[in-house]
Amino acid sequence: MNIGVIGLGLIGGSFALAAKKFTPDCVLYGFDHQPNHLEEALSLGIVSETLHPNAVATMDVIILAIPVDAALEQVLALLDQMHNNALLMDVGSTKVAICKTVALHPRRNQFLATHPIAGTEFSGPKAAFPDLFVEQSQILCETSKTRPDLLEWAVQWFRNMNMNVNEMDPEAHDKHIAYVSHLSHISSFMLGKTVMEKEEDERAIFEMAGSGFASTVRLAKSSPAMWTPIFKQNKNNVLEVLKEYITNLETFKQQLEQDDFKGLFEQMKKTNAIKKILAGINQNNITNQSIINHGK
Amino acid sequence: MNIGVIGLGLIGGSFALAAKKFTPDCVLYGFDHQPNHLEEALSLGIVSETLHPNAVATMDVIILAIPVDAALEQVLALLDQMHNNALLMDVGSTKVAICKTVALHPRRNQFLATHPIAGTEFSGPKAAFPDLFVEQSQILCETSKTRPDLLEWAVQWFRNMNMNVNEMDPEAHDKHIAYVSHLSHISSFMLGKTVMEKEEDERAIFEMAGSGFASTVRLAKSSPAMWTPIFKQNKNNVLEVLKEYITNLETFKQQLEQDDFKGLFEQMKKTNAIKKILAGINQNNITNQSIINHGK
Repeated sequence: MNIGVIGLGLIGGSFALAAKKFTPDCVLYGFDHQPNHLEEALSLGIVSETLHPNAVATMDVIILAIPVDAALEQVLALLDQMHNNALLMDVGSTKVAICKTVALHPRRNQFLATHPIAGTEFSGPKAAFPDLFVEQSQILCETSKTRPDLLEWAVQWFRNMNMNVNEMDPEAHDKHIAYVSHLSHISSFMLGKTVMEKEEDERAIFEMAGSGFASTVRLAKSSPAMWTPIFKQNKNNVLEVLKEYITNLETFKQQLEQDDFKGLFEQMKKTNAIKKILAGINQNNITNQSIINHGK
Repeated sequence: MNIGVIGLGLIGGSFALAAKKFTPDCVLYGFDHQPNHLEEALSLGIVSETLHPNAVATMDVIILAIPVDAALEQVLALLDQMHNNALLMDVGSTKVAICKTVALHPRRNQFLATHPIAGTEFSGPKAAFPDLFVEQSQILCETSKTRPDLLEWAVQWFRNMNMNVNEMDPEAHDKHIAYVSHLSHISSFMLGKTVMEKEEDERAIFEMAGSGFASTVRLAKSSPAMWTPIFKQNKNNVLEVLKEYITNLETFKQQLEQDDFKGLFEQMKKTNAIKKILAGINQNNITNQSIINHGK
């Protein structure tokens, strides 16, 4: 079978490498609008062929792994060109807009909306690695709108990669992901910005920043080209969550101004319960494995 | 020689374990106001003897590794009780208050203010490990006020542990550390709080939270008993930094509300330069090794 990957960055590249590992009989085609990324992916062996526009019809599976604004622009034309038994999947961090965009396409049932909850702060083909998705969640949206045979293939493919396949409706996805992913990125970017604006003496940062700062600010290394369209598409949810975050920071500030140290202590103590949630993340594979059964 | 460690948590316990490794001829005495922590430290072999109050005078070195408010309460009495050639070091995350507290003590020159920039989000004796400080910064304050022979011993001891010894005045320390440590903790605690308040459906968090969230919220697992007094002692610096952080978040929110995606992109792009700073953290050992020479 022919698998095409459009967008050969961290996610697309890692899916190509995982495909090579778990679908050894496939031929991998790839495309990236940045010529150097395409060349890199070919020379690193992430894909073996260039996916020329006129070859889309020969693909059996296409992974669309480009920023979410570009994905909206390309998804309909790709569905137009695909053959009647091919499957197109996107991997974006927002799901409402893409599901709406494809809703009325005659080949809607050849599309599957996915969001692999995996990533690092690095980007580009060099950042890709085949085990990025192992034991990570793969969230699928509107699975009932995808042709059962194509859905079944996809679910099995992700399970072969050792992903934990879950389902969620697009609205719930975009609301929840604003909390556990989009807000983390804003908090980290603004932390980095605050420190960089004020700490002109970089030497002092080198000396004093430890693993705690590195961990909290890690996401500030993420790609703005990827994240700007995510914030745009999920604007309303992100704004709501961001307001709540600012309100909590304001409350903390006021408590500190008023020497309410008991109040500060108590809210930190309560927030320590995040330990349980984080422990839960690591048990993902135990708790979530059998949510989608109709794809089995 | 006898080394006493008061406070057998992550930092104190790790110094005890490092002492065992790098100062094999020492006998380690320990005390913790939580009886179960003392018992744990004894049974884990972190220290070999209980440091009874009447034995303080027999210690050659004492590490004071308790919350910064408790350290202020105990530091003078410890100096009173120590013998004339003993060294007392604190390890707290604020340095102005402790330096002021000891300033006029007749044994000021037997005290050394230190801040090892090392830690994890875990606490208690079980969290301690001997290599916590390897290649981490150790910031010393007011070294000229410490007796040269005692300072020299301490600097060599930290260097034996593979720490990068730096000097900074207490005011500069407290100002800079507010940015690269104290603010990270607030940002992380409030992120955890925001998500926990809103995500009543914990299942959704389990499914959707990935490594990015885990990294950003990691510090929200930190001990409130340790952090409340730090925020109290460094109140003015923390408030200033926190205001700047909130202002940056407000600007981000307004740009998003006004669809200023170009502005969002540009500030994220600019903040990506944090990469260089984080890379610098890892090169700490190369850039900072020879700052303190008078302790050699």
